Amino acid sequence: MHIRVINPNTSAEMTATIGEAASRIASPGTRVSARHPDHGPVSIESHFDEAVSAVGVLEEVLAGEREGADAYVIACFGDPGLLAARELTRAPVIGIAEAAFHMATLISTRFSIVTTLGRTGIIAEHLLDQYGFSHHCRRVRAAEIPVLDLEENGDAALVRIIDECQRARDEDNIGAIVLGCGGMADLTDTISREVGLPVVEGVTAAVKLAEALVGLGLCTSKHGDLAFPRPKPFTGRFEGFSQLTPER
Amino acid sequence: MHIRVINPNTSAEMTATIGEAASRIASPGTRVSARHPDHGPVSIESHFDEAVSAVGVLEEVLAGEREGADAYVIACFGDPGLLAARELTRAPVIGIAEAAFHMATLISTRFSIVTTLGRTGIIAEHLLDQYGFSHHCRRVRAAEIPVLDLEENGDAALVRIIDECQRARDEDNIGAIVLGCGGMADLTDTISREVGLPVVEGVTAAVKLAEALVGLGLCTSKHGDLAFPRPKPFTGRFEGFSQLTPER
Amino acid sequence: MHIRVINPNTSAEMTATIGEAASRIASPGTRVSARHPDHGPVSIESHFDEAVSAVGVLEEVLAGEREGADAYVIACFGDPGLLAARELTRAPVIGIAEAAFHMATLISTRFSIVTTLGRTGIIAEHLLDQYGFSHHCRRVRAAEIPVLDLEENGDAALVRIIDECQRARDEDNIGAIVLGCGGMADLTDTISREVGLPVVEGVTAAVKLAEALVGLGLCTSKHGDLAFPRPKPFTGRFEGFSQLTPER
Amino acid sequence: MHIRVINPNTSAEMTATIGEAASRIASPGTRVSARHPDHGPVSIESHFDEAVSAVGVLEEVLAGEREGADAYVIACFGDPGLLAARELTRAPVIGIAEAAFHMATLISTRFSIVTTLGRTGIIAEHLLDQYGFSHHCRRVRAAEIPVLDLEENGDAALVRIIDECQRARDEDNIGAIVLGCGGMADLTDTISREVGLPVVEGVTAAVKLAEALVGLGLCTSKHGDLAFPRPKPFTGRFEGFSQLTPER
Amino acid sequence: MHIRVINPNTSAEMTATIGEAASRIASPGTRVSARHPDHGPVSIESHFDEAVSAVGVLEEVLAGEREGADAYVIACFGDPGLLAARELTRAPVIGIAEAAFHMATLISTRFSIVTTLGRTGIIAEHLLDQYGFSHHCRRVRAAEIPVLDLEENGDAALVRIIDECQRARDEDNIGAIVLGCGGMADLTDTISREVGLPVVEGVTAAVKLAEALVGLGLCTSKHGDLAFPRPKPFTGRFEGFSQLTPER
Amino acid sequence: MHIRVINPNTSAEMTATIGEAASRIASPGTRVSARHPDHGPVSIESHFDEAVSAVGVLEEVLAGEREGADAYVIACFGDPGLLAARELTRAPVIGIAEAAFHMATLISTRFSIVTTLGRTGIIAEHLLDQYGFSHHCRRVRAAEIPVLDLEENGDAALVRIIDECQRARDEDNIGAIVLGCGGMADLTDTISREVGLPVVEGVTAAVKLAEALVGLGLCTSKHGDLAFPRPKPFTGRFEGFSQLTPER
Repeated sequence: MHIRVINPNTSAEMTATIGEAASRIASPGTRVSARHPDHGPVSIESHFDEAVSAVGVLEEVLAGEREGADAYVIACFGDPGLLAARELTRAPVIGIAEAAFHMATLISTRFSIVTTLGRTGIIAEHLLDQYGFSHHCRRVRAAEIPVLDLEENGDAALVRIIDECQRARDEDNIGAIVLGCGGMADLTDTISREVGLPVVEGVTAAVKLAEALVGLGLCTSKHGDLAFPRPKPFTGRFEGFSQLTPER
Repeated sequence: MHIRVINPNTSAEMTATIGEAASRIASPGTRVSARHPDHGPVSIESHFDEAVSAVGVLEEVLAGEREGADAYVIACFGDPGLLAARELTRAPVIGIAEAAFHMATLISTRFSIVTTLGRTGIIAEHLLDQYGFSHHCRRVRAAEIPVLDLEENGDAALVRIIDECQRARDEDNIGAIVLGCGGMADLTDTISREVGLPVVEGVTAAVKLAEALVGLGLCTSKHGDLAFPRPKPFTGRFEGFSQLTPER
Repeated sequence: MHIRVINPNTSAEMTATIGEAASRIASPGTRVSARHPDHGPVSIESHFDEAVSAVGVLEEVLAGEREGADAYVIACFGDPGLLAARELTRAPVIGIAEAAFHMATLISTRFSIVTTLGRTGIIAEHLLDQYGFSHHCRRVRAAEIPVLDLEENGDAALVRIIDECQRARDEDNIGAIVLGCGGMADLTDTISREVGLPVVEGVTAAVKLAEALVGLGLCTSKHGDLAFPRPKPFTGRFEGFSQLTPER
Repeated sequence: MHIRVINPNTSAEMTATIGEAASRIASPGTRVSARHPDHGPVSIESHFDEAVSAVGVLEEVLAGEREGADAYVIACFGDPGLLAARELTRAPVIGIAEAAFHMATLISTRFSIVTTLGRTGIIAEHLLDQYGFSHHCRRVRAAEIPVLDLEENGDAALVRIIDECQRARDEDNIGAIVLGCGGMADLTDTISREVGLPVVEGVTAAVKLAEALVGLGLCTSKHGDLAFPRPKPFTGRFEGFSQLTPER
Repeated sequence: MHIRVINPNTSAEMTATIGEAASRIASPGTRVSARHPDHGPVSIESHFDEAVSAVGVLEEVLAGEREGADAYVIACFGDPGLLAARELTRAPVIGIAEAAFHMATLISTRFSIVTTLGRTGIIAEHLLDQYGFSHHCRRVRAAEIPVLDLEENGDAALVRIIDECQRARDEDNIGAIVLGCGGMADLTDTISREVGLPVVEGVTAAVKLAEALVGLGLCTSKHGDLAFPRPKPFTGRFEGFSQLTPER
Repeated sequence: MHIRVINPNTSAEMTATIGEAASRIASPGTRVSARHPDHGPVSIESHFDEAVSAVGVLEEVLAGEREGADAYVIACFGDPGLLAARELTRAPVIGIAEAAFHMATLISTRFSIVTTLGRTGIIAEHLLDQYGFSHHCRRVRAAEIPVLDLEENGDAALVRIIDECQRARDEDNIGAIVLGCGGMADLTDTISREVGLPVVEGVTAAVKLAEALVGLGLCTSKHGDLAFPRPKPFTGRFEGFSQLTPER
């Protein structure tokens, strides 16, 4: 089984971090290939960054299709381009936010999210609403650290994240914590040990969900609103999408 | 007052249709400039088309900022890039789906939507949920016509839309109908006459809401999660976004 | 265009305040006439006050119909008699609570309300639920000042309102504030300046929404549940309503 | 125990029907007094009728207070003036819509409503939302008979109501039916026999809930938003409310 | 009328407390018989305790059927076995959590719950969701006392409960308090006096609701999903349920 | 890895069917042991059957703990005893209804459920509400076949299930179908082939989710409301639960 893990930002360091975490958790028969787009923002900290990054995600899915990927993981906590990506393939596509939410509800009745910047909290709130998990999340918290600090000032960032997780544990009446950034994929064990309750991280959760769906033989539905897009002309720098003739 | 109306698809005919409808409805002191991106799909009929089109919308907002636009209308019923666009400017930004929903709730207690293709119904459902209008919409209906048929086979398309609107009126227990595509902007009067109940169309509704917000002196909030994006490097074909230094 | 602004309480001072704010915001071609009922409470601070005031509102709408008003604004934050008023006319009728909520969601993702007395908070909560905006409002706050203090102890009242707005800004994770009383219509600029984020006030918002609907040619739906009431006998002091024969 | 049953419309026949049904169901120690306002509509079939009737309801509550009523029933399916009435008294006040909804959820998992005119369905929908019962109601149905036909064309009306109830039973996947009009208070047994599943009627349900609350010693809360209204001047024909000095 | 009050735990002291409170509140013509299962936990403080206790509840309902009970009360705040019990009988079956919620919404707009252990709060939250009362409850609070302390350390427990109720009153913006444990049935008057706002207790509320339903002639629906269970073999210690042939 | 699959009913044939389906889908390193309780109903078709079966499920979890199971699957579509079971172990516990819902939302935007008897539809509705998936499910359908017919009249049952699935596909505007009974675990491939869209079955889905959670090292939270139950005396036939001293 070949899982393509797409880091929607263009930071090679973060792609490596994510890819290593994904590989470590993958089952023996699973091959993980981590990629990031050639085009896009180095980090995703706003609706704007997210919208731009979605195009890169879609190109990486199309590349994955040519290489025969069996499943895709979108490794940014805003799940950018998720439904669009599902239209492009029969393979399962999993966002790390949804993956973490699903897993957290299976081991606890209520959870809190600890993310990077407060301004991205609204993105998590919108996803919770869309996926149906609003009632399971007590609170969206932010450690107020820029995403790239996870790579560049890892130790200081870790302290702040643990600190916020402990506050969540003590104040929020929860059973589990969801880490709200793909860049935290290598921190799960440390945080979990320090905080003392289950810590759910999306990259690893998504890899296991992708394996599960492939194992079940479940494909993304091509009946109805996730069917392949109707082929049509694209202009300018997106002209390449005009050649889109997905296997049907 | 200068309202920039952005048609997110790259069809010049549809941009003209939308621009004319917007200009007709605008108040005397309002100048409407209609634009479409240089890069993107000729029509928007899927999550994929919508995700790609969002980048073009954002570029047009940045262009509008350079030209001093006072407000923006995003003229596709999926409101692509709406929150991202709001981050890029202090000017109000209005999506035509939200505009139509808001207006419909002010003149009726319940409405139905008549859109183009059934597969885009889920996009409307997600927006209704996010905006809070799910309970006000009885049903999302589709005339099952491709978007460009509105330009290319206008008469046949009109017949099918009117037909579906009449079914909505007779079966859905509603007070108003929302037209679910920017390309229907010039059909409102005809449809309304044939159907006999208020028909709300998003392009015109959005122009009037934009005028209203500018008239009130209300700007897009720069406090909290719609603040300008943090400047950062973008790579590849999106490198231009690295120079993003919005007036603060 | 003639907009009839109805202050549902019988305070002439507040009617003047409201009327001036409405006139100031109105477009050149718009004439604003502000009225208050002859019969009713001097201020509205409870469900009881609101229920009684609704009858006065309805009489003012009927008077407006005789005078050819093109739209109506109900200038109390509980939107008293709103749906009943809509039944009496083809003209648009806008409540100031709904107007403020609609506008606030167009410029921010989340807002808080600052109202007068805590006991009226439940009225705002019920309206948020009915209109679909509960998820967009973080918190309903009260400055704990009686409504008429806005006229009689304006300076002290203003200090308390600004104080509460600043708390909302600092604690509620919001992008905008909604002022929860028609009597605050002249305070918007001052408060906005002191608080530093968009402040949405309902009277002015409603005037612009009324202009927008009239500009769009959108009437209150007479199809279904907002149709004119069936004529019937009324007894006693409401006998006058028996003559109700709205243009059909 | 003295329960004041207030028929919000001014039809003496319907007041008699309601009063008899209430008396029949009351416990031995309970005295029922049925009243209708002197001022108001002869039937309630719109938001307008309902808004006007609310004032009459409030006057009857004040009259009941002078006569020492122990509880109040508001016998119109729109529960007009319910929260306002609660502010005027420590005694329990029960609306017949809420009473029927509460009772129906105790004997079934899902119910449908059969009301008079389709246009009043929206009132029931709004109450279901406000009270929290939207998910328990499968469908709001109308027999499309004017309210007074229940008195004047009783046999024909009954046939249509039974017919609609049978459709509800056969099509709606429900366990119980709620009758949606106070004027149906004397039809419950007949309908229930013909339809063969539990039929919940609001007047009788409200009388028993009122007895229950009085028996429990539970009063309408005077802490918070249902406290007595602040005394204040009322003008014109509502001047009498200025003397409002409820026992505190 | 014979109301069977079932204490789902096996504590005889608590059964006596509950039975006495139920008898005191019952109407003259009502006979209350309080029972507890022979098999089950001495107190209910977890999902596990609750699941086990449900079987005992069902056996007590079957016993009550043989003795001709007219209604049943399930006297544990988690309403264990409620829908299952309803399937076994035509008589009304009332849970004390639902009873308290219903009554609280009739005398206030918002309430808080004060229960025993924090870990049982989630059970109350799930019931609020299922019954439709989530929006009416501001907060679920726990006094953090084990259930049996209500019997064994009554004075100390009472102090903590009153303390938590006073915090609810002062901080939660509510009109009433719901006591969240059947073992508090005898404390209502004391707590209400100390706290100064209406205190709703479920055992007494359920007795009055049961009387109300019986008085109305309303039975548990046997149409649809609460119909008698299909007879079938049960094995092992539940073999007795195979003989289940409820009167149909 | 050892996954204990618990069939909550006592039908050995169904346990075999479920166990075989679970074993077939399990990964190489996973051992599946299928068990059914010694005590309980032969099939589960009502709230009553479900409540009784929950105790058997809990005993099987305790047995699994003694045998060192790494995860548990509760293989009845009502997820009986799910939260109680989670309290008894650190191992993940997955219900087949929740498993199917989670998986269905990852490959489609909307699904329908096809279950056995119509009367069990309400159980699915309540679970959808509790888990947060109500908006993702378009319709709960029943083939109206008793559960044991799946074993005893397999061919006829299969025809009816396929028939109902085809109706769901053609009428419900969905992308996937969820099979609503553990006894359908061996039919998935056939149904999926006949119906032509993804068919999600809970037993297999739950096995893969259990593997995923174990692979992630995620345990059921013991912080907060899923902590081990407080030890306490149980009486009568449940006395064995008194010895409950879970590893802490």
